[in-house]
Amino acid sequence: MAQDFRLRCPLPAATGGTIQLAHGGGGRMMRSLIERLFLPAFSNGYLDAKHDSAVMRIGSGRIAFTTDTYVVSPLFFPGGDIGKLAVYGTVNDLAMAGARPSYLSAGFILEEGLPIETLESIVHSMREAAGIAGVELVTGDTKVVDRGKGDGVFINTAGIGLVGSEVEISPARVAPGDAVLLSGDVGRHGITIMSVREGLGFETSLESDCAPLWPPISALLEAGIEIHCLRDLTRGGLASALNEIATDAGVGISIEEAAVAKCEAVAAACEILGLDPLYVANEGRFAAFVAPRHAERALEILKTHETTASLIGTVGNRGPGLVEARGPFGHPRILDLLSGEQMPRIC
Amino acid sequence: MAQDFRLRCPLPAATGGTIQLAHGGGGRMMRSLIERLFLPAFSNGYLDAKHDSAVMRIGSGRIAFTTDTYVVSPLFFPGGDIGKLAVYGTVNDLAMAGARPSYLSAGFILEEGLPIETLESIVHSMREAAGIAGVELVTGDTKVVDRGKGDGVFINTAGIGLVGSEVEISPARVAPGDAVLLSGDVGRHGITIMSVREGLGFETSLESDCAPLWPPISALLEAGIEIHCLRDLTRGGLASALNEIATDAGVGISIEEAAVAKCEAVAAACEILGLDPLYVANEGRFAAFVAPRHAERALEILKTHETTASLIGTVGNRGPGLVEARGPFGHPRILDLLSGEQMPRIC
Repeated sequence: MAQDFRLRCPLPAATGGTIQLAHGGGGRMMRSLIERLFLPAFSNGYLDAKHDSAVMRIGSGRIAFTTDTYVVSPLFFPGGDIGKLAVYGTVNDLAMAGARPSYLSAGFILEEGLPIETLESIVHSMREAAGIAGVELVTGDTKVVDRGKGDGVFINTAGIGLVGSEVEISPARVAPGDAVLLSGDVGRHGITIMSVREGLGFETSLESDCAPLWPPISALLEAGIEIHCLRDLTRGGLASALNEIATDAGVGISIEEAAVAKCEAVAAACEILGLDPLYVANEGRFAAFVAPRHAERALEILKTHETTASLIGTVGNRGPGLVEARGPFGHPRILDLLSGEQMPRIC
Repeated sequence: MAQDFRLRCPLPAATGGTIQLAHGGGGRMMRSLIERLFLPAFSNGYLDAKHDSAVMRIGSGRIAFTTDTYVVSPLFFPGGDIGKLAVYGTVNDLAMAGARPSYLSAGFILEEGLPIETLESIVHSMREAAGIAGVELVTGDTKVVDRGKGDGVFINTAGIGLVGSEVEISPARVAPGDAVLLSGDVGRHGITIMSVREGLGFETSLESDCAPLWPPISALLEAGIEIHCLRDLTRGGLASALNEIATDAGVGISIEEAAVAKCEAVAAACEILGLDPLYVANEGRFAAFVAPRHAERALEILKTHETTASLIGTVGNRGPGLVEARGPFGHPRILDLLSGEQMPRIC
């Protein structure tokens, strides 16, 4: 997700020392690395907009541009594989800017010794996903690294989407009073990957939620919903996404924990493993910040795409940068950023 | 380079078996993989144009879009590093479509345990290169993989460039009679990397030619030179680039071997190591196919950027797909595609 470069927060320096897995986990350590290293180096108006995609004017039109690299392990999992993830993950970052996904690039890093059959399956899956998402893969690259210097396949995709002239979606537009909507139940992707990797057996009743998100976004736009901001929930889950928005928009966010849907298998797995489902990764869910007068209509539209969509909270002006979840008995707890992802290499 | 997906040639299937280093070497095995797997999966008008970048219409303008992943080993070498390579490599693919490089994305795959100082040096180098090339890095992503599943740093960059309304550069425009110009001496990048990696000592008098190529291309365009096609010489060197054009344009190409400049260190290293300099990788050189009446003027312009630029040959209609080099005594030899790169992980 493009957001990996656009985060900005007053955290201790990450410089010195070595890279740890948590530096790629979507939490506090990744933010610190970005804040201390990448943002000062490359700071410009596009990065500073802190958006899932950079939006640029080209002639009379506007495009969104984003990139994401996929290193998920294992390569294949219930409900998807690295190829499907590499297409949907990037088209979803475009959709979060209100952009119609149009063109993709793909860069493969193959490890010597990878069975060509495996690559064929992945490419087949990418083609299918691209067809469903309505994007064309227009340019690509293949590199091979020696055995033991990679891990089967890594894929980078970059994407270009077309942004309608009336669309203005960005963290800067989030304002007190905005309704916070969640597009569906959380945690399927993260628990599925964890379960397959660790042989926990939950995946027999569970599949990744990996899916393209342009259809519901497009429906919201067509209905004239005043969308202020969108954010897909990937590494670090719902809680991390809300933290980013709260920090970048300088607002407080308050949600009702009971309003966040979880399927039974996810709830059970989180209970047993001691995980907080609000921090578990997703690959087909997003949060939408909409004008309060449009909240009800927006929820109706989201429910036609995913029945578990819900209104989970509101934006306030108390405690800028803070995200608060009220539990079933009304007790609030602060949803802070974790230092890293509960599970590495989830996407 | 985008060309990795746009090659098409009647070669034996590469399916079955496993990925080998040569599948990423820019030669026959890579072409076979692309021909049998990637092209049938993703075939569309953009890929089929067989260009270094895909060129798309956006509103009233046109953009070029390309991607490349960098896995060079070692990360630092005389004249550059993976960061500089990741910026110039991609802006050069844009320039080869006659596009002014404008926006870059960057996706990092970091290996657990990488010293953060190393990453800082690379990011610093990318910033400097982006400044020189006149591009903004507008979106990015960071992933971390476990120790032993990567190799320090891999970088993907994708780029967007703006294409002037009058620009029409593509293999399809290459025609018999075209002059073939070479923008400077060959082999510096490949021999430098090889020398550092193998401890051969040539690098004391040698640096990579890694450089941005938009300035000379821009000068040619501004002078009104009728450019039919451009191709930067990377993996597989001059011989592979000419083979691609000969195949994709359905023409024969004939060059004078003596007209291809080599610096003394490259000539000596190739002599000692038994390498053919025409196949050694470059990162700051290109071949230009121009209308014969503009050859002289184009050469003058190229020489103001690089004194070793030269007119090396012509396009004929004999032997479509064949590239022929005439030696110092007039004897011709066929420059065929090699099965892979003479040296893996050169870029």
